Amino acid sequence: MPQTQTKRKIKMPEIRKDPVLGRWIILSSVRQKRPNDYLAAEKKMPQNTCPFCTGNESLTPPELYSVKDGSGLWKIRVVPNKYPALEGDLPLAPQSEGQCEKMNGSGRHEVLIETPNHNGTLESLPPDHLAEIIMTYAMRSREMLKNDLIKHVMIFKNQGKDAGASLAHPHSQLVGIPLAPRRLTEETGGCRRYREQHGVCVFCALAKEESELKKRVIAENSSFIAITPYASRFAFELRILPKKHLTNFENITKEESINLAEVMQESLKKLSCSIPGLCYNMMIHSTPKDDHSGIYHWNMEIIPKLTQVAGFEWGTGFYINTVSPETAAEILNSGRIIKI
Amino acid sequence: MPQTQTKRKIKMPEIRKDPVLGRWIILSSVRQKRPNDYLAAEKKMPQNTCPFCTGNESLTPPELYSVKDGSGLWKIRVVPNKYPALEGDLPLAPQSEGQCEKMNGSGRHEVLIETPNHNGTLESLPPDHLAEIIMTYAMRSREMLKNDLIKHVMIFKNQGKDAGASLAHPHSQLVGIPLAPRRLTEETGGCRRYREQHGVCVFCALAKEESELKKRVIAENSSFIAITPYASRFAFELRILPKKHLTNFENITKEESINLAEVMQESLKKLSCSIPGLCYNMMIHSTPKDDHSGIYHWNMEIIPKLTQVAGFEWGTGFYINTVSPETAAEILNSGRIIKI
Repeated sequence: MPQTQTKRKIKMPEIRKDPVLGRWIILSSVRQKRPNDYLAAEKKMPQNTCPFCTGNESLTPPELYSVKDGSGLWKIRVVPNKYPALEGDLPLAPQSEGQCEKMNGSGRHEVLIETPNHNGTLESLPPDHLAEIIMTYAMRSREMLKNDLIKHVMIFKNQGKDAGASLAHPHSQLVGIPLAPRRLTEETGGCRRYREQHGVCVFCALAKEESELKKRVIAENSSFIAITPYASRFAFELRILPKKHLTNFENITKEESINLAEVMQESLKKLSCSIPGLCYNMMIHSTPKDDHSGIYHWNMEIIPKLTQVAGFEWGTGFYINTVSPETAAEILNSGRIIKI
Repeated sequence: MPQTQTKRKIKMPEIRKDPVLGRWIILSSVRQKRPNDYLAAEKKMPQNTCPFCTGNESLTPPELYSVKDGSGLWKIRVVPNKYPALEGDLPLAPQSEGQCEKMNGSGRHEVLIETPNHNGTLESLPPDHLAEIIMTYAMRSREMLKNDLIKHVMIFKNQGKDAGASLAHPHSQLVGIPLAPRRLTEETGGCRRYREQHGVCVFCALAKEESELKKRVIAENSSFIAITPYASRFAFELRILPKKHLTNFENITKEESINLAEVMQESLKKLSCSIPGLCYNMMIHSTPKDDHSGIYHWNMEIIPKLTQVAGFEWGTGFYINTVSPETAAEILNSGRIIKI
């Protein structure tokens, strides 16, 4: 099945630290070998061999968990990622290598198959099915976090080739990471500074303000609000915020899951209506395990993939966005189709 | 010529601050209107109307500078970007907008047309021509930095559609920014910490170590070394470092430009030999104007575009790389062609 079989030795994942920025990167050569639905015809996976379709369960590692329908067939299935970014339980043991530093890439990497339907989408599922996916994200997170080594679970979905997916069958991923992610440390620092200055949580304040202003709201119910953020880096980028101050996604209740599913579906329907062939990245940002400050406010980010991150962005860390979030909200709420 | 003419009002660029991360983004709706060589046939720019080809000089704003060949024809040409990310000289004047903050998007955006040859590449130019491009980068930077408003000049190149280029004719860009870029502030902080701990510049130490080790060297001469960095975020990513501690790119000498051109050409030749249809981003990182500490060490980054930044990276700020920098160096130095 792998399309790039080489004789090169496959090493265990390794985590390396950038000596200038202190940023960690993960080296995982096994991920080179993963199958790909989007390659040129001759390299592509043969039809009927999708490892996520019903009948092909033997093509994945043994199931970790599943949700069954009324007839006892799975409708959501969780399996270990066959090509993990991180794996194993070895303690971290940082090691010097010249001026630099590395450690072993311990952790977990799971795949959540969202539906048996190869061509399904999150927005077209029955709402209670999406709520069950959300509850499964939370349940698998809690399970991974029981492991002392795991400091955070990153939950994300890459939809479509342009968003970096390698398989078309609808799926999400959960990565158990042995460190608190840089992005969350930065966001938590920002939340702390805002709270010191203004006495409130920045996400609570934003959710309230946006709900009143109505200039950047895409979907809203009693528990959640989806907005095009004021300082969006990308055209049509969305954030979904719980209206209450909730720190940890993995503690989401059943009622909140149903409400989140509703706001997600309305948001994704509007995006896929205005953006033909929508590809997107979805990420859940939540408080890392060892942070008990109660400062961070969990949230979901959805980034449609319309342009490339290019030299200016890589060089400066600033982003150029050509569609204002107010225009994006107006287009999404009117159902107008954009030209790409 | 613009392929997405709409009647929507084009506003002046605006800079907005993310209330959580403190990150600035640039809103520039005029950039929606820029022509594009890479669109589907019906939307594509007609042939013979490339604004960067000889004979079409009237399609660009008036020339700011050019380098002429022996017959008095231009071989390098600098013009204002017709679709600027930042423009004008208005003072910054930050303004509150609810919980958020914005300011006007003042600055400069220039295009450097590298050669009259529509299908040229940096690696196939005569070496002295590339050295002249490098000296023109430096000269235009010095010119922009005379403006009190400009705090930094970001020099970059997007080569090919996958790297975010909209025009195929070889060109680089210079953006004069009214703020020190986040990325450089972070890198300078990292250099300062390293110097406090080890008493030396981290880039000086790395250049020396890599030159001795020879495990990650792609090209080297008396003044520069090109390496696949130890903690590369992307497969086949390169850094070119001056071997001496030089803080400001814009002060590059003629001799250094000739040496940099040599190392750049050898690096780009190896990349384009191993990666068919190479698309890449090139960025020059240099000390921002108001930093007189002498801490930072200017350098060049080249990122081949082979994969998409996806959910894991956006969510964590960590990167997963499937090709170790040692393997990348071995492949590039052997001339082996990789399968994409």
